[in-house]
Amino acid sequence: MERTDGRQHYQLRPVKITNDFLISPHGSVLIEMGNTKVICTACVENTTARHLTGTGKGWVTAEYSMIPGSTATRKKRDRNGKTDGRSVEIQRLIGRSLRSVVDMDKLGERTIWIDCDVIQADGGTRTASITGAFVAMVEAMKKLKEDGEIDEIPVTGCVSAVSVGVVEDQPLVDLCYEEDSRAMVDMNVVMTDKGEFIEIQGTGEDRPFTPAELNELLALAAEGCRQLHEIQKETING
Amino acid sequence: MERTDGRQHYQLRPVKITNDFLISPHGSVLIEMGNTKVICTACVENTTARHLTGTGKGWVTAEYSMIPGSTATRKKRDRNGKTDGRSVEIQRLIGRSLRSVVDMDKLGERTIWIDCDVIQADGGTRTASITGAFVAMVEAMKKLKEDGEIDEIPVTGCVSAVSVGVVEDQPLVDLCYEEDSRAMVDMNVVMTDKGEFIEIQGTGEDRPFTPAELNELLALAAEGCRQLHEIQKETING
Amino acid sequence: MERTDGRQHYQLRPVKITNDFLISPHGSVLIEMGNTKVICTACVENTTARHLTGTGKGWVTAEYSMIPGSTATRKKRDRNGKTDGRSVEIQRLIGRSLRSVVDMDKLGERTIWIDCDVIQADGGTRTASITGAFVAMVEAMKKLKEDGEIDEIPVTGCVSAVSVGVVEDQPLVDLCYEEDSRAMVDMNVVMTDKGEFIEIQGTGEDRPFTPAELNELLALAAEGCRQLHEIQKETING
Amino acid sequence: MERTDGRQHYQLRPVKITNDFLISPHGSVLIEMGNTKVICTACVENTTARHLTGTGKGWVTAEYSMIPGSTATRKKRDRNGKTDGRSVEIQRLIGRSLRSVVDMDKLGERTIWIDCDVIQADGGTRTASITGAFVAMVEAMKKLKEDGEIDEIPVTGCVSAVSVGVVEDQPLVDLCYEEDSRAMVDMNVVMTDKGEFIEIQGTGEDRPFTPAELNELLALAAEGCRQLHEIQKETING
Amino acid sequence: MERTDGRQHYQLRPVKITNDFLISPHGSVLIEMGNTKVICTACVENTTARHLTGTGKGWVTAEYSMIPGSTATRKKRDRNGKTDGRSVEIQRLIGRSLRSVVDMDKLGERTIWIDCDVIQADGGTRTASITGAFVAMVEAMKKLKEDGEIDEIPVTGCVSAVSVGVVEDQPLVDLCYEEDSRAMVDMNVVMTDKGEFIEIQGTGEDRPFTPAELNELLALAAEGCRQLHEIQKETING
Amino acid sequence: MERTDGRQHYQLRPVKITNDFLISPHGSVLIEMGNTKVICTACVENTTARHLTGTGKGWVTAEYSMIPGSTATRKKRDRNGKTDGRSVEIQRLIGRSLRSVVDMDKLGERTIWIDCDVIQADGGTRTASITGAFVAMVEAMKKLKEDGEIDEIPVTGCVSAVSVGVVEDQPLVDLCYEEDSRAMVDMNVVMTDKGEFIEIQGTGEDRPFTPAELNELLALAAEGCRQLHEIQKETING
Repeated sequence: MERTDGRQHYQLRPVKITNDFLISPHGSVLIEMGNTKVICTACVENTTARHLTGTGKGWVTAEYSMIPGSTATRKKRDRNGKTDGRSVEIQRLIGRSLRSVVDMDKLGERTIWIDCDVIQADGGTRTASITGAFVAMVEAMKKLKEDGEIDEIPVTGCVSAVSVGVVEDQPLVDLCYEEDSRAMVDMNVVMTDKGEFIEIQGTGEDRPFTPAELNELLALAAEGCRQLHEIQKETING
Repeated sequence: MERTDGRQHYQLRPVKITNDFLISPHGSVLIEMGNTKVICTACVENTTARHLTGTGKGWVTAEYSMIPGSTATRKKRDRNGKTDGRSVEIQRLIGRSLRSVVDMDKLGERTIWIDCDVIQADGGTRTASITGAFVAMVEAMKKLKEDGEIDEIPVTGCVSAVSVGVVEDQPLVDLCYEEDSRAMVDMNVVMTDKGEFIEIQGTGEDRPFTPAELNELLALAAEGCRQLHEIQKETING
Repeated sequence: MERTDGRQHYQLRPVKITNDFLISPHGSVLIEMGNTKVICTACVENTTARHLTGTGKGWVTAEYSMIPGSTATRKKRDRNGKTDGRSVEIQRLIGRSLRSVVDMDKLGERTIWIDCDVIQADGGTRTASITGAFVAMVEAMKKLKEDGEIDEIPVTGCVSAVSVGVVEDQPLVDLCYEEDSRAMVDMNVVMTDKGEFIEIQGTGEDRPFTPAELNELLALAAEGCRQLHEIQKETING
Repeated sequence: MERTDGRQHYQLRPVKITNDFLISPHGSVLIEMGNTKVICTACVENTTARHLTGTGKGWVTAEYSMIPGSTATRKKRDRNGKTDGRSVEIQRLIGRSLRSVVDMDKLGERTIWIDCDVIQADGGTRTASITGAFVAMVEAMKKLKEDGEIDEIPVTGCVSAVSVGVVEDQPLVDLCYEEDSRAMVDMNVVMTDKGEFIEIQGTGEDRPFTPAELNELLALAAEGCRQLHEIQKETING
Repeated sequence: MERTDGRQHYQLRPVKITNDFLISPHGSVLIEMGNTKVICTACVENTTARHLTGTGKGWVTAEYSMIPGSTATRKKRDRNGKTDGRSVEIQRLIGRSLRSVVDMDKLGERTIWIDCDVIQADGGTRTASITGAFVAMVEAMKKLKEDGEIDEIPVTGCVSAVSVGVVEDQPLVDLCYEEDSRAMVDMNVVMTDKGEFIEIQGTGEDRPFTPAELNELLALAAEGCRQLHEIQKETING
Repeated sequence: MERTDGRQHYQLRPVKITNDFLISPHGSVLIEMGNTKVICTACVENTTARHLTGTGKGWVTAEYSMIPGSTATRKKRDRNGKTDGRSVEIQRLIGRSLRSVVDMDKLGERTIWIDCDVIQADGGTRTASITGAFVAMVEAMKKLKEDGEIDEIPVTGCVSAVSVGVVEDQPLVDLCYEEDSRAMVDMNVVMTDKGEFIEIQGTGEDRPFTPAELNELLALAAEGCRQLHEIQKETING
């Protein structure tokens, strides 16, 4: 099977993370993975989540949305009071993924609001959101440190995410929309820079998948995340 | 580590599936896994999902809810127009899991509405819902066949689900609520009776998990699902 | 006129109240009147209603819902933010009926949340809810007394309810769904064990009713409630 | 017990029904009972309720609302998508009461929308709404007849309503707000001009009531409704 | 062009402001401009808007609504949780217009709730609302002064509003509904009694308008507002 | 008075319109006015608004939203089912402004959906939205013409908009956020390239404004719009 854009099955699309993309938020990046473009911002609020008040611990929470012009057919806004189920799932995943590497005691009683606004969608928006949001979150923490509010950047590792899937029985990494819509198996993997898993979400809606396929997909994901961790670190340190 | 209820780490809680639990729905079961109790019903509607009208294909969709008295502290109802994020995630999972083994062409332009109403919650409500809902769905299909509406039961396999997790660094199967609340890693696995995966959702919110731990958890899940498939088949054929 | 199930016009369906039906709530019963089955729970919260804060008085409030599989055609859930008008009426009636026999000063600044979840509906769900909820409420109060939080059970009487109606010009007690759907006059009566009225709601949507019919209906209701009070007392004392 | 406004216990407040109060609706009246003032309008739509389409039958439905300035402390508008429970109960009562005297076959496939907008509230707004809405409905029917759309006014009787209650153990008719707020027992009675009951809603939230009290209250209601029927007929024929 | 009701292009419809229209609100008027009738009430609450707490400043806020029977075809109520866009615009305009002449320091930490409920609509309901609401607001302030809560009426000027528009290329003042529906240009002007502007909202949805037309419209509006200021002052002082 | 960024009172901020900003919509631009940045997209749907079906006429409608990271303090999303009042006003203004220059008969039974998503807000977002949306709309129309769906671009003129206001008694054009927050008078003006007005919305919330001030503001607006029309034409023709 040849990929539409000529990539090898183990190859990511071109990745670009633009730092300091907006002037107001504490941290903000534009992440581009091929044609997929997401603005990820991190805003710090000086109170923690309600259930943590008085514990000395902070919180990280995320929201995800797509602008109407981001998709092939105009996406309706969530204005009837019901955030669509897919968005709910995605923003819960982003929040969990980032929280897993934050030391909430060192963050202190603050909330970091992560917002991932997709301005162009071509597959992999949730994994791009996680990868970009991690950078925006660390940038916000750097600002807190510069302002003397915290002593060190309270993260225990670096988090990135990538999609993998099976198309025409071929495991692939970083599926574009056209590939994703034909995938028999679809999986999102979130990993640390130590090669450990934070989240695995694999679905065989078209057909079930075997343990052997699972192993191949996890190997592709591990290599993809490794490359993303490098790009994240360059952005943060650059 | 000893489990509160004296089980081995690889042992399921007592499982009981009561068939024909209610008089009205086409299929209805009460599934009990330890203290967790869920009413699963399957109601057939003679139109398919809107996006499938005219294709000859059917649809399976699911809703999940907990009655207020099911939890240790009273669970507020979803009456403000926002189904809570966790319920949205769960009911989407139930729907996907069942659809993966249904032959929609053979079902024809019908919708099977699955409802999972938790009346007592002690951990593992989403996996119990899937296991019970599969039985209710097949019962509804049997009624369609008896009524001469379809020629054969349009399923390609048997689906069950179980939770696994890591508690005090020990992988366990079928966690009760008390174990679940202390779990470092939490995973739900949906499998067919051929030992293939339909869905894997693993989260390390407390700490990331290693590839070795992943393998142990998947082995426990495979054995748990195997036992559940047997009980499902007894119920359906019994 | 003969009744479908062979009952006399003055006869209740078989009644069964199962106490301690669920493990979490302070009080919980399953009430069955024929095929009608309702789970009634009572959960105690240690704050009173907002408008009573500081008065030393408690509060009792109720919610009513039907699971989708409880009715002949699947009942849609109230998930668009609008509780349907019928449910609003019913839960207000349940709350008022229970409050009328509670000594709010003796209850103290607590709220008792009553939940009536119908799992199977065959007519008379609102009256069965009241009859069952009274038992669940008293069970919750007994637990409060055992825990030394109150000195005595703060109720001034026993409350039960029954439906009556006119079908083919014949007054009947405890109508099943099939009778209810043909009723010309429909009435719900809530009474104390002293033979007094707490609530009378009579409607002649199909045709008006005469004072003579009203008297017959009230006599049937009084006898029905008397029998229910006996069953309630056996359950509570048993 | 003396009434604040010097009335006897069996005396209604001054009643005035102004016909043709607004220019647009098919029927519209302003009803005043003492200080209680309600605008009742009837608008005809040329389709029946959805569940009646094709049956040849019409429908009557009602909505009830209070303007914010109508009450002693400003009443918040129902703008959060939840009509408050009390309004839901009231508008269902108004609709049922009017439907009970309409011959839906003779009305034909039309809907009459009744709107009761309270502009000043001093007790008895729901019963004044019913009494006024009946007149507005008949006026709308007269217009349909004048326009040759129907052959006769499709009503089988005249409907009025009045509140009764027990204050300081004294049964009273047509309670003003101050009396209503002190009532131990509160009852609304809807009757035809043949002395039959359409609806009885009696509540003893403060204390239960005896059969003897019930009889006294019903007698007061019957006389009150009789007087209201006369005023309605004068308005309609005048 | 001749106007349907024979008015000159510079002539207002008959204007009548009835003071003390309702018994409960601090201020309440019925304003009639031709067939347009609006009840305007002003209720005082003893807390200011949240963002002003502790500043010593008060607040004025407004809500606008039409009863269903006020329009030629029945107006649906805003009961789905979405106030319609037009009402939102209008009530924001009413609030801004009144606030522009209130000395919030002298009002003190109070909120004046303005409610404009249209009972009959024949064009110009938003401008009639402003003109009437100003009177109701001043009446409420007079009551505060009588009660010794404030030392002087905290307004810096008198506010009225009028609609102007271009119909068949002819600038007109105070358009009735029939004129408004044919208007090429539509403008609402809010002015003080010193001839200054508080708000100008001009729209050429049908066609753009020239600077010369703008000047003519503003001159008509100025004269209309001048006449309304006189009537307002008579009502307040009368 | 000197402006923070050194501009003259009649000077616009640097303006840049990037065409073809996104790949999916029929038309899409990024408009930047100083730090204000808005993505404007135009998507064509092949049905007209419901009230125009069968008339041969098309429709243009607009939605406006700000991403949370666009403002100095994080802007909450509209997810509770209530679009905030300010957004409602703005999107109605955008829609009206564009419709005023579209020949709906020539557009035919199509809807053009305009979406204005603010990614960075520094004052003047609604006027930038109109100016940018006009370009996106014409780009979408050019695509329809290229595809042979329409014969000519159905617009009768060019529309741009600019804000003007009075700060420290000095009339200014194109206010940035800091100026806007101190403005005594605030006005948005929408004009055609023939120097005619489409919309004027002027508000003196802080103090009323005189006819002389009005004239100065309108002159500043006319010159600002003239410059914007030139930039729009370059973008469209370039």
